[in-house]
Amino acid sequence: MVHTGACIANLLGQGGSRKYHLTCNWLRYFKNDRDRRDLITCGSAAGVAAAFRAPVGGVLFALEEAASWWRSALLWRTFFTTAVVAVVLRGLIGFCRSGKCGLFGQGGLIMFDLSATIPSYSTQDIVAIIVLGIIGGVFGGLFNFLLDRILRAYSFINEKGAPYKILLTITISIITSACSYGLPWLAPCTPCPADAVEQCPTIGRSGNYKNFQCPPGHYNGLASLFFNTNDDAIRNLFSSGTEKEFHMSTLFVFFTAIYCLGLVTYGIAVPSGLFIPVILAGATYGRIVGTLLGPISDLDPGLFALLGAASFLGGTMRMTVSVCVILLELTNDLLMLPLVMLVLLISKTIADSFNKGVYDQIIVMKGMPFLEAHAEPYMRHLVAGDVVSGPLISFSGVERVGNIVQALRITGHNGFPVVDEPPLSEAPELVGLVLRSHLLVLLKGKGFMKDKVKTSGSFVLKKFGAFDFAKAGSGKGPKIEDLDFTDEEMDMYVDLHPITNTSPYTVVETMSLAKAAVLFRALGLRHLLVVPKTPGRPPIVGILTRHDFMPEHIHELFPNLHKSH
Amino acid sequence: MVHTGACIANLLGQGGSRKYHLTCNWLRYFKNDRDRRDLITCGSAAGVAAAFRAPVGGVLFALEEAASWWRSALLWRTFFTTAVVAVVLRGLIGFCRSGKCGLFGQGGLIMFDLSATIPSYSTQDIVAIIVLGIIGGVFGGLFNFLLDRILRAYSFINEKGAPYKILLTITISIITSACSYGLPWLAPCTPCPADAVEQCPTIGRSGNYKNFQCPPGHYNGLASLFFNTNDDAIRNLFSSGTEKEFHMSTLFVFFTAIYCLGLVTYGIAVPSGLFIPVILAGATYGRIVGTLLGPISDLDPGLFALLGAASFLGGTMRMTVSVCVILLELTNDLLMLPLVMLVLLISKTIADSFNKGVYDQIIVMKGMPFLEAHAEPYMRHLVAGDVVSGPLISFSGVERVGNIVQALRITGHNGFPVVDEPPLSEAPELVGLVLRSHLLVLLKGKGFMKDKVKTSGSFVLKKFGAFDFAKAGSGKGPKIEDLDFTDEEMDMYVDLHPITNTSPYTVVETMSLAKAAVLFRALGLRHLLVVPKTPGRPPIVGILTRHDFMPEHIHELFPNLHKSH
Repeated sequence: MVHTGACIANLLGQGGSRKYHLTCNWLRYFKNDRDRRDLITCGSAAGVAAAFRAPVGGVLFALEEAASWWRSALLWRTFFTTAVVAVVLRGLIGFCRSGKCGLFGQGGLIMFDLSATIPSYSTQDIVAIIVLGIIGGVFGGLFNFLLDRILRAYSFINEKGAPYKILLTITISIITSACSYGLPWLAPCTPCPADAVEQCPTIGRSGNYKNFQCPPGHYNGLASLFFNTNDDAIRNLFSSGTEKEFHMSTLFVFFTAIYCLGLVTYGIAVPSGLFIPVILAGATYGRIVGTLLGPISDLDPGLFALLGAASFLGGTMRMTVSVCVILLELTNDLLMLPLVMLVLLISKTIADSFNKGVYDQIIVMKGMPFLEAHAEPYMRHLVAGDVVSGPLISFSGVERVGNIVQALRITGHNGFPVVDEPPLSEAPELVGLVLRSHLLVLLKGKGFMKDKVKTSGSFVLKKFGAFDFAKAGSGKGPKIEDLDFTDEEMDMYVDLHPITNTSPYTVVETMSLAKAAVLFRALGLRHLLVVPKTPGRPPIVGILTRHDFMPEHIHELFPNLHKSH
Repeated sequence: MVHTGACIANLLGQGGSRKYHLTCNWLRYFKNDRDRRDLITCGSAAGVAAAFRAPVGGVLFALEEAASWWRSALLWRTFFTTAVVAVVLRGLIGFCRSGKCGLFGQGGLIMFDLSATIPSYSTQDIVAIIVLGIIGGVFGGLFNFLLDRILRAYSFINEKGAPYKILLTITISIITSACSYGLPWLAPCTPCPADAVEQCPTIGRSGNYKNFQCPPGHYNGLASLFFNTNDDAIRNLFSSGTEKEFHMSTLFVFFTAIYCLGLVTYGIAVPSGLFIPVILAGATYGRIVGTLLGPISDLDPGLFALLGAASFLGGTMRMTVSVCVILLELTNDLLMLPLVMLVLLISKTIADSFNKGVYDQIIVMKGMPFLEAHAEPYMRHLVAGDVVSGPLISFSGVERVGNIVQALRITGHNGFPVVDEPPLSEAPELVGLVLRSHLLVLLKGKGFMKDKVKTSGSFVLKKFGAFDFAKAGSGKGPKIEDLDFTDEEMDMYVDLHPITNTSPYTVVETMSLAKAAVLFRALGLRHLLVVPKTPGRPPIVGILTRHDFMPEHIHELFPNLHKSH
């Protein structure tokens, strides 16, 4: 759901899909990076809000995980989005309560209502909860470690081509089915409790107490967990006053199965998430711990299941405030909030000592150039000039068309510095930065000149509208391969001044790399120009892009960095 | 409470108070700006968490209102703080439940438990709630407008000296007392409801149904609101199933009194807040609207009171997510969340069209140099070089002691650029920025030299420890007036290189002012060096400080700015 929300938002941000005739003129205002990024953040917030019926949790999820760059306006926008989601969701649930929409609408706005349980706890209970937090941290760290290995193996398989991808998916599906259907055979049949409020055993509908090959009047505990919807399984685990419902062995088997299936399922070529398996596994071991610690703690195993889910979420995803609020909105159990906070504190602290959060790991593994919000310590020993790499290609303020076309063809750079040289200026002078996409639009318009003279720039205003230079959707916009120029055109000149960004952010080459990285990250830049410290040299030393700040690139340049410091 | 939390945090951040022997060696790690700022944010979060027993609300309050500069580490720290507050608070409430601590501990972790009310609403109800949101926006905007005027008048009075300050405080106290005691005389006596669960009338203890001069078996509605603790008054207003408890006239009088008293009380020389008066006033008009719209809406007036409080909070403070969560944690009424979000959306949107949030107004009025997160539109038409003001004082890398002392005496600048000139370097070259506080520590240590030569800097390492240059508490640290130098010392030289920050953030003088402002704000800078664009000029144009980005300063320099654009 989170992914779906973000994808829809991205589609809207690209102004709809021209291919499927889903364009909308009004959407063109989103044709820039910042609004598009904001829109994707709002989309993921809306996804969480809809999936867990947790609007405030959605805002916090977007804040804690999705947004790398937070502004107060963004807070207000995500809040607006999730408020609309909440109102629409509430309306649909009301409409569907009559049973017109299948299983949707069950459980109301609060999916697992626990508010009936008695909220009092003693010092022993807190000890038990600290134990739970420690276990959650260890399991979470282990989960992240194993998931990382498995995803690396999968990416190796997936790279071999589509048949292998499909084969992998089929294998995992078969294993999942075998587990779900096979494991309940191992579980013993339990007689239905005499005072059961619900129907027992249930056959052919969602609910507690699945019959599964048991004699009448008996139910199979493992089947009750496997053969329900995930929602119902979680509800069963969280339910209070049902100490005896599940055998210890049942819970152990279910925990092992869900833990392993959760590990192997994420990363295959089907849309799947981590939230539900993590909540299920956490709730299961929470119930196990609750049952084991029954002698020293008075808390209900259902509450232990809730706290177990919190601890495992904290241990894998390392989110704190948003997990708190999402669990609060899922269970309506505000009085447990101090315990949930405590368990999250402990599990996150312990898991953080092993490895990084699961989303951070996935970003690293996918090779996304994601910059950490803080600079790495070794960056303090380098300066910005150290990491500038490759030959620098810069343009003159009025440049030969041929040079531009050649530069665009041989490099993939997205930004080029523009330098005015005599006779355009008295001394070589940095004019600014010109973007590849703007160059392409300019070349496509073919406003070329015979002579190398500076123009007033009015031809650009005449020839192009304001939205011609707006950012096109990904994969849209003109490409250099699609443009053709005659030899005569190649020898003409074009004035780059009108499309040059004349105040790009710059750093001096002796600036500490750590500080340059903070600047780059805090302002969300794409290009950072490095200028020389002393005069009498070319006015530009190089361009830093995100790639140049990545640890891999720096270690490649300075292999002895860690050894020397 | 919020203020108290922030103050305690600030005290801790200054390493305790040396005056009162509250120092702690361990606290010296907080002797820098960033940690101190974070600590104050955590303190205000802890204050909200304790005052409203709302730990998650505290985190969000700190995020939405207190922190101007948010990092994910800060989120985790505030969460940690409020989690500790929640656990301690829960323990104290458990301890005090036995009645040992007076009124504290009543109400448990949830102060106004509403979870019993039936949460279903129809389309007419939503129309009623939209009306409530609009009223909240209008009242909130009006409140902010009036508060601004009143605070301006008060600051005029308070400036005249302490006697006037005390006189003002006494006047307001008398007015408040007169209102509280006088107004209930106007209210009619109501017979106690026959089916009252609580004692009616109550005399001499906190609770519903105050007797106040009524015959036995009757109660005075207005007294029930005025003579209770604020907590109980809010609980009375939020209570459900009590449509007839308060007369319409009672509510009108109470609303007018609380609205006006809230306006005149904030800003006098007593510690008082805005939250409680705003919640009280909002709840009252919510109940009024609920009673008036009774024919078209089935919702309980108690719920209308809750939504009224939300709408007024949204209208004055313009917070969204944090108000939502604080109200949620106050009332435990999760099912009302969509309605609370809706009412906040409407009231904030409407009030925003009138004026700014109350905290923003107060900051502007107090003359705090608070920078907006976004650049003003007119800044796009200026460049950084335009607003650099005053004569620039810069030091040579090895400077005469007399020059430094004179510069520190005649200016109040906190940062000075250091420029190496021949023979120290080949050409004039910007070395970096040196801070006033570091200069003072260096001068106090008196490591002077006879000749103008560059040293290895080792004398600084020998003479000073790492914590000598740590930021002292406000008003602490050496002052230039306290340092004495002989004429001989004044003619000696001191090497500034070891204490110079060699990679300060710089912008080129032709950088757009809007972009420079974004840089300044996003990185939380104190000084931004402006360097020349073309070579052959002195290597530094000026220093930009927070003051230079303030609208007042810019309008002073360019009086025609708004007219020309």
